[in-house]
Amino acid sequence: MEKVCVIGAGSTKYGKLDDSITDIAVQASVAAIESAGIKPKEIDAGYISNVFGIADKQVHLGPVIMSNLGISEKPSLSIESACGSGSVSFREAFANVAAGFYDAVLVTGVEKVTHTGTEWTTTYFSYCSDFFYEGQAGASFPGLFASMARAYLTEFNATEEDFAKVAVKNHENGLSNPKAHLRKKITVDDVMNSAVVASPLKLYDCCPFSDGASSVILCSEKFAKEHTKDYIQVIGSGRGGSPAALQGRNHLTTIPSTKLAAESAYKMAGLGPKDIDFAEVHDCFTIAEVVDSEDLGFFEKGQGAKAASEGRTKLNSEISINPSGGLKSKGHPIGATGVGQVVEVFDQLTGRAGEREVKDAKVGLTQNFGATGASCAVHIFQSV
Amino acid sequence: MEKVCVIGAGSTKYGKLDDSITDIAVQASVAAIESAGIKPKEIDAGYISNVFGIADKQVHLGPVIMSNLGISEKPSLSIESACGSGSVSFREAFANVAAGFYDAVLVTGVEKVTHTGTEWTTTYFSYCSDFFYEGQAGASFPGLFASMARAYLTEFNATEEDFAKVAVKNHENGLSNPKAHLRKKITVDDVMNSAVVASPLKLYDCCPFSDGASSVILCSEKFAKEHTKDYIQVIGSGRGGSPAALQGRNHLTTIPSTKLAAESAYKMAGLGPKDIDFAEVHDCFTIAEVVDSEDLGFFEKGQGAKAASEGRTKLNSEISINPSGGLKSKGHPIGATGVGQVVEVFDQLTGRAGEREVKDAKVGLTQNFGATGASCAVHIFQSV
Repeated sequence: MEKVCVIGAGSTKYGKLDDSITDIAVQASVAAIESAGIKPKEIDAGYISNVFGIADKQVHLGPVIMSNLGISEKPSLSIESACGSGSVSFREAFANVAAGFYDAVLVTGVEKVTHTGTEWTTTYFSYCSDFFYEGQAGASFPGLFASMARAYLTEFNATEEDFAKVAVKNHENGLSNPKAHLRKKITVDDVMNSAVVASPLKLYDCCPFSDGASSVILCSEKFAKEHTKDYIQVIGSGRGGSPAALQGRNHLTTIPSTKLAAESAYKMAGLGPKDIDFAEVHDCFTIAEVVDSEDLGFFEKGQGAKAASEGRTKLNSEISINPSGGLKSKGHPIGATGVGQVVEVFDQLTGRAGEREVKDAKVGLTQNFGATGASCAVHIFQSV
Repeated sequence: MEKVCVIGAGSTKYGKLDDSITDIAVQASVAAIESAGIKPKEIDAGYISNVFGIADKQVHLGPVIMSNLGISEKPSLSIESACGSGSVSFREAFANVAAGFYDAVLVTGVEKVTHTGTEWTTTYFSYCSDFFYEGQAGASFPGLFASMARAYLTEFNATEEDFAKVAVKNHENGLSNPKAHLRKKITVDDVMNSAVVASPLKLYDCCPFSDGASSVILCSEKFAKEHTKDYIQVIGSGRGGSPAALQGRNHLTTIPSTKLAAESAYKMAGLGPKDIDFAEVHDCFTIAEVVDSEDLGFFEKGQGAKAASEGRTKLNSEISINPSGGLKSKGHPIGATGVGQVVEVFDQLTGRAGEREVKDAKVGLTQNFGATGASCAVHIFQSV
């Protein structure tokens, strides 16, 4: 099995973007290609992740992106796994490079939804749930994560203020991220006084809908060494599944797919939670980051909320969680989110993170799930 | 690299189906699992192909299907490459098994569109083109393939009647396929007198919109030998791309992605066009089958239409093309189509094809493209 490396990364700004889905995907792809210092024709294949291309009238995005890059002859495909699309696409690219099918691959995640309005987006998002059991009953994602949050508050020694501190921390990190959607300092009071979306979750417990695109270049170690000294290595990759509908789960305060994906990724890397210097995790709602931090093994079950509340997940604390600002502040352009996490890890481990740098970081982890965690992928990276 | 085998296959009927997208996907998956004689829990991952899940209010289909199969813990994903989604999903599953990441994988393609009406479907199909250059100019797929057909008629010694004979032949094959959408014998006159859709293409030159699901079980040779004697081997796999918009191509009478994919697949298999006993090719329009038969090397450029007209592609003739009835008669449930082609190859090479059996067939090929061939995958299989 070939060692797999990331040699380039790029993102558009996340937020409300005017350019088309194709244009922003190409902008991120070009940024990643330039950052890698390679020529487009050196790319063997394109792995695109996207969920709602239909919202911008363009599916079958791969050939359109490849054509715009001047490499229309190269194969491409689109991967969808709801909000976890980006990391699954990354995983497929990883598997193909590891197996020696390709030397260098472009992984681009993209989404364009803000122009459709909240009603359209919320409705279509609900098609990512198990629609028969959830969406058609009116259980959209804020409601489903509210169920998880309520269960957590009932089961463990935690408060809504603990959740609020996750949002405050991620907004603080996002202030130093020029690509972030919501660059705005907020307080616990701001969160507590914001409109209730689905009790106990309030507006500032929720990530925004964002437009955006992120890209990375994955390649074999040989290709990396021939092209740059500035690369990182993928040392762990794992995926897992959960019952698609929340009602099929035995517990609401843990996501089985995260635990399975993490177990595989840690095993492949030969590492454990204590070896991770920082993590980009899937904080679509504040409760999600709390649950993630436990399922990934950073804290004991039931301790994640208090740990966040005590500042143990802040930048350069015990474990820096979401130094980029996470989905909450950086934004959540669905198909791009998982790829954007890898962009942050690349920037952190190659000294490009500026003010939000995790000091002396050697090992970073990404965790990105779909829906309420019906699917999840975890990757572990180290500097070289 | 592990040898990769297909040990089971199953399909729903193609046509207008009342069951939900989830239900038909599960029906096909169960049929494939039963045909393989394995237990669901022996499956390591699910590769789903689908384009318009949104039409039946269900995307993120993988976890929903896996949950219905009782194996929610297993990873899954959805792959989209327009009408070529099924073969690209098959290719990713192949790559993962070949690399040793998984022992046995479920590949399920599914589509549910007939309930949305022709207008919705035609509009959304056009989002699979390069929408900036094509769809928004009103160039939907019948128009784009009509351009290819007109160019072919202009450039080569061929007639509309030659194209019609492709439809007549595929309908004749489909008569013996109990799963086919349009099981109806037609004549050249029927085709010539049918309504003009986009000149020179008439209604009977066009495949239908279909609902349907198809599944196969892919596995390592070791797994295959432990479970059954009734399996086939994947001996070639290739992919390629073309300029996304037709206007970017140098010629309208050839599809570059098919030639690239075929070249790779033939090379991997160590075979050439003359070694292929039968082929399931992408005949979304009659002109497409003609072009495919040339790009795959079965006939010289410009000879495909006459070859079809002379009966050289009929069942048990020089090369049996689309013994299943093809997209034209069997139907075209977008995301399922490429997987359905593999189901036909499995049935043919394991003696399950009944009346439409290709005699003494040892080697079969599938070719499945997206849009006007912006993406294409070719696979070659042999009996063991």
